[in-house]
Amino acid sequence: MIEEYKKIIEKKLEEYFDEKLKNPEYGLFKDVIESMKYTTCLGGKRLRGILCLEACGMFSKRYEDAIPCACALEMLHAQSLIHDDLPCMDNDDLRRGKPSNHKVYGEAIATLAGDALISFASQIIIEKTPKTISSDKIVKLLYEYSLAAGAFGIVGGQTADIEAENSTEKISIEHLKFIHKYKTGALFKASLLLGAITGGADEKQLEAIKNFGDKFGLAFQIKDDILDFTSTTEILGKTAGKDENSNKSTYVTIFGLKDAKEKLNNAIADCYDILNSDALKSDVFEKIIKSLEN
Amino acid sequence: MIEEYKKIIEKKLEEYFDEKLKNPEYGLFKDVIESMKYTTCLGGKRLRGILCLEACGMFSKRYEDAIPCACALEMLHAQSLIHDDLPCMDNDDLRRGKPSNHKVYGEAIATLAGDALISFASQIIIEKTPKTISSDKIVKLLYEYSLAAGAFGIVGGQTADIEAENSTEKISIEHLKFIHKYKTGALFKASLLLGAITGGADEKQLEAIKNFGDKFGLAFQIKDDILDFTSTTEILGKTAGKDENSNKSTYVTIFGLKDAKEKLNNAIADCYDILNSDALKSDVFEKIIKSLEN
Repeated sequence: MIEEYKKIIEKKLEEYFDEKLKNPEYGLFKDVIESMKYTTCLGGKRLRGILCLEACGMFSKRYEDAIPCACALEMLHAQSLIHDDLPCMDNDDLRRGKPSNHKVYGEAIATLAGDALISFASQIIIEKTPKTISSDKIVKLLYEYSLAAGAFGIVGGQTADIEAENSTEKISIEHLKFIHKYKTGALFKASLLLGAITGGADEKQLEAIKNFGDKFGLAFQIKDDILDFTSTTEILGKTAGKDENSNKSTYVTIFGLKDAKEKLNNAIADCYDILNSDALKSDVFEKIIKSLEN
Repeated sequence: MIEEYKKIIEKKLEEYFDEKLKNPEYGLFKDVIESMKYTTCLGGKRLRGILCLEACGMFSKRYEDAIPCACALEMLHAQSLIHDDLPCMDNDDLRRGKPSNHKVYGEAIATLAGDALISFASQIIIEKTPKTISSDKIVKLLYEYSLAAGAFGIVGGQTADIEAENSTEKISIEHLKFIHKYKTGALFKASLLLGAITGGADEKQLEAIKNFGDKFGLAFQIKDDILDFTSTTEILGKTAGKDENSNKSTYVTIFGLKDAKEKLNNAIADCYDILNSDALKSDVFEKIIKSLEN
């Protein structure tokens, strides 16, 4: 099912961009649409989109209803990658083994493409979500999306991260957790929420999904920190060892590799617990959690 | 009434930001919220917000309903200013006579603040629009907002503008009109539309409002080009003469000052015609158009 989800997300992303690229009215800003498409369609695991589709399907048996949301979340993720790679941020030339967006389109267009992805994602949720989903729900989807996209989501997390890097002292564990809660966790949580809302989850189920999103985001981030430390640039498709080189605070630099691995295992155990106790049964979720194991 | 609108927009903008700044949970990303507030609350004519409130009030007699939309549009305008001023774009150190955002907060935070304003604006429309406005309408508001904010609005216009600047040849009049239609016109049109939708305008009235928005945007842009040519940095509060210095195509550089003034007068006459023929009677609109006259 994971492969099926991934394929449909990639197909639909292509379609959504190509539909606009084909419109002759938009000829004079083709560059920015191509730049938006370049990073969004550069591959990747599509984890956010997959979580969204599964969270929808598990409540409604109609995962297809959440395809626009799944694509919107992948667009937002691409936006954050484009802006994170800019010279004034992480200054990274590589993304998924390819030149990063500003290396291909220049900094100005890359900045604009990121901006445009933020609102194109909302536009797609409104344009493409089936009419069977009520306006009340669409407003809820757009609200959770807006929270995740902005200062109270990934942008806030990135800000706290930059402040940590600018600080001469090692940051506290609370600060590190805060960074991850927003920088990585917010988007995973939104992915699950958008799917669950579209699928008609009730309040209790939404709480369980949020809780799972928090723990999953944590596990994902610790794994990411461990990979940055142990892997190579070739395998990662992005510059490895950056955290250590930039003296960045991560689970590995703060706790050491051994303890970081233990914390990862604990977070993974928490994820399984929530899935069991809240009866959010899902082979897809289990497989995804399994992929984070050491 | 214009002054009353302006005052309430500025008061509410402060309130919306301060409400978030006061939340201790957001302490670690205070910087980005302050950066968002800095440019948004830097003053200015608040023309987009005023157009929005008036377009609402003229249909419903309850302009207050559109305050969240008016503030959202001012946030989006501020976002475009922050990113336009970045070194990779126009590289401008001054905005409204004050240091531009990245001069105060650094490029990374300025980039993030712009990103966050795009979604904070949607968030505010959803959080603050009175519950008497239906979800169907909220979805319409968010759709028009998303279009104006992205590749099919101000970002598209900015892209076409950058391509014109990178071109060695003078651009065609069609290209110039296209730039203005999206770069400036889209946001004015959205301002009027969001107000009119909130105020309950019918389809015919929405068409008239859109039409007025197009003509008003054109008049505004020609005036802006003329001012850049004839005014001083001190009066403008931003670097004057930039267009000429950067060999930019404008109504003045393409048509000369005299013809540009004539085109401005024609666009102004068109605005009055629409207001009369479509019975969009409004002292506020008339005063605003009058302020563009030579």
